[in-house]
Amino acid sequence: MQKYEKYSSKLAIFVKNEYFYILNSFTMNLKLVAGIDIGGTNTTYGVVDNHGKIYGEGSFLTRKYMDFDLFIQALAEGVNALASDIHEDYELAGIGMGAPNANYYTGNIEFAPNLMWSGVLPVAQKLKDRFAGLPVVITNDANAAAIGEMIYGGARGMKDFVVVTLGTGLGSGFVVNGELLYGHDGFAGELGHTIVSPNGRECGCGRHGCLETYASASGIVRTVYKLLADHRGDSILKNISFNELSADMITQAAINHDPIAIEAFAHTGKLLGLAIANMIAITSPEAVFLFGGLVRAGEHLFTPVKEHLEANLLKFWKGKVALLPSELNDKTNAAVLGSAALVWKEIKEK
Amino acid sequence: MQKYEKYSSKLAIFVKNEYFYILNSFTMNLKLVAGIDIGGTNTTYGVVDNHGKIYGEGSFLTRKYMDFDLFIQALAEGVNALASDIHEDYELAGIGMGAPNANYYTGNIEFAPNLMWSGVLPVAQKLKDRFAGLPVVITNDANAAAIGEMIYGGARGMKDFVVVTLGTGLGSGFVVNGELLYGHDGFAGELGHTIVSPNGRECGCGRHGCLETYASASGIVRTVYKLLADHRGDSILKNISFNELSADMITQAAINHDPIAIEAFAHTGKLLGLAIANMIAITSPEAVFLFGGLVRAGEHLFTPVKEHLEANLLKFWKGKVALLPSELNDKTNAAVLGSAALVWKEIKEK
Repeated sequence: MQKYEKYSSKLAIFVKNEYFYILNSFTMNLKLVAGIDIGGTNTTYGVVDNHGKIYGEGSFLTRKYMDFDLFIQALAEGVNALASDIHEDYELAGIGMGAPNANYYTGNIEFAPNLMWSGVLPVAQKLKDRFAGLPVVITNDANAAAIGEMIYGGARGMKDFVVVTLGTGLGSGFVVNGELLYGHDGFAGELGHTIVSPNGRECGCGRHGCLETYASASGIVRTVYKLLADHRGDSILKNISFNELSADMITQAAINHDPIAIEAFAHTGKLLGLAIANMIAITSPEAVFLFGGLVRAGEHLFTPVKEHLEANLLKFWKGKVALLPSELNDKTNAAVLGSAALVWKEIKEK
Repeated sequence: MQKYEKYSSKLAIFVKNEYFYILNSFTMNLKLVAGIDIGGTNTTYGVVDNHGKIYGEGSFLTRKYMDFDLFIQALAEGVNALASDIHEDYELAGIGMGAPNANYYTGNIEFAPNLMWSGVLPVAQKLKDRFAGLPVVITNDANAAAIGEMIYGGARGMKDFVVVTLGTGLGSGFVVNGELLYGHDGFAGELGHTIVSPNGRECGCGRHGCLETYASASGIVRTVYKLLADHRGDSILKNISFNELSADMITQAAINHDPIAIEAFAHTGKLLGLAIANMIAITSPEAVFLFGGLVRAGEHLFTPVKEHLEANLLKFWKGKVALLPSELNDKTNAAVLGSAALVWKEIKEK
């Protein structure tokens, strides 16, 4: 009898353990995070696993909510609506967010000129309040893109690299020794606001000659107009007004051999190549990834950037630092993936 | 009897422990490291404690030893001679070294243009062989200066700062989140070789327009000659040949109100201020320290650097990043202290 009880008790423990093990592997083992990208125009969000599989996505116009608390409410409802559509049991393990002027250290969006809410916005705390204390990690969109590249893209296995995002402006995320370079205040990585031409083009930041006034979607539009002013000869771009002209049109024109469009990419590449070479002199990365719509121009962009990058590198770096298109360029939801990667990285390190 | 044996045994253990404790506190507790600085002209070395107290120093001409193995032998003998002069018992806990093109990762000096030994020199291994496997940490002199600032100087307690060394060339050491920024290959921090004036002054690196051709001891000499060529008016510096003119003479002339010398510092400050502002945009440090002979010019250097730094900073950094003279400037043995700090930092972290 005593013997039987002993075995029975062991069996009970075994059965109990197995039960939880099985429960764990079939139900609770699926962990997902929410990835959120707040842009001046759109806010997009998704629910993503560790391998970059997206279980659901949504978006709305950021400007729809003049009140920041209503914006947070809409965002939380959006994420919860996605969650209820997933027909598997899972655990929501965290929330990652990329947003303009988002500060990793404080969890606040601080004085973002491209958002309509002014001042300091405690976005991480407000999301924690709505999601029962889940870990919330925020940073700017370029830093999120860099972590996205490291977790899901071409920088897997790299410890020192840079992602340069060529959007309306120019953003950059620096990974140094496997960690994002946040700097003393959380705002490191403003390559777009290094001054490449003192007394040069007027910038949205109030200064002149910032790299992003040349090397970005808005910068290349300005370059096309400069070239049209300076040169004769024909170009399809002569039929388009400044306000209508987009970087996509210039990209398409370059692909169709338009000489002004090709020259505009060459000029962009000259300044961007030098700026990247100077940045390599400071941080010595293994690779530099270019992300954004301009990358679709392919060799029209990469050939001049590479040429001027190599020409301006110190001898011992020549030919050694890879210049690559971001592997997230092909994904429509790169921003959501980047934001999800941001929190996945922290969860894994715990 | 049994009871007595029990106590006797405990007493023996107690006495034994106390004996080692006393031995330890009075003899072996003093730990020292060797700090070595290899320069193109001089090699200096010293034995230093945790608080920056130097127990002995020596130096010899680097060029005295054409053979690298003989150089290492002389260096080891020099360090051992210092060691035998110390009239206290101590433990030599490690060796730190600053040298041109010294690679933290490999322990090698790699293709240093300013040293007479060519190729790859396995200096860390050779010192380990002579000092019974002691930890040997090497890096370039600007990185050693940065760690020196962190352990013994004005950067105590800081996690993100930069030291800019204004010597014959311009070196820089970046500390990011409490660690030196080495980059992928160990050679990060070449601020002196960022190009500030495409097609500008010829640089020793074979390119044109590097920051160090303007902002360094040799750069300011070139600036004085440019100013003498461009301007009329009197200057004490008109009596000195290019080869005789030193940065110290220009510093002294500025202190004595010589207009060309003051203008040379203003021009140096303009380019250096912009370069530091651009570097802050990338790494966002808490403070930037200037080290080297030019710093003796005081306000003649700091006022223009500060003016152009502030003018070129993004709005949210204006007035927030400290520009300071290195606290190691006043020490004759800053290079030895920096190298010693390098290995102290690693010993403490173990």
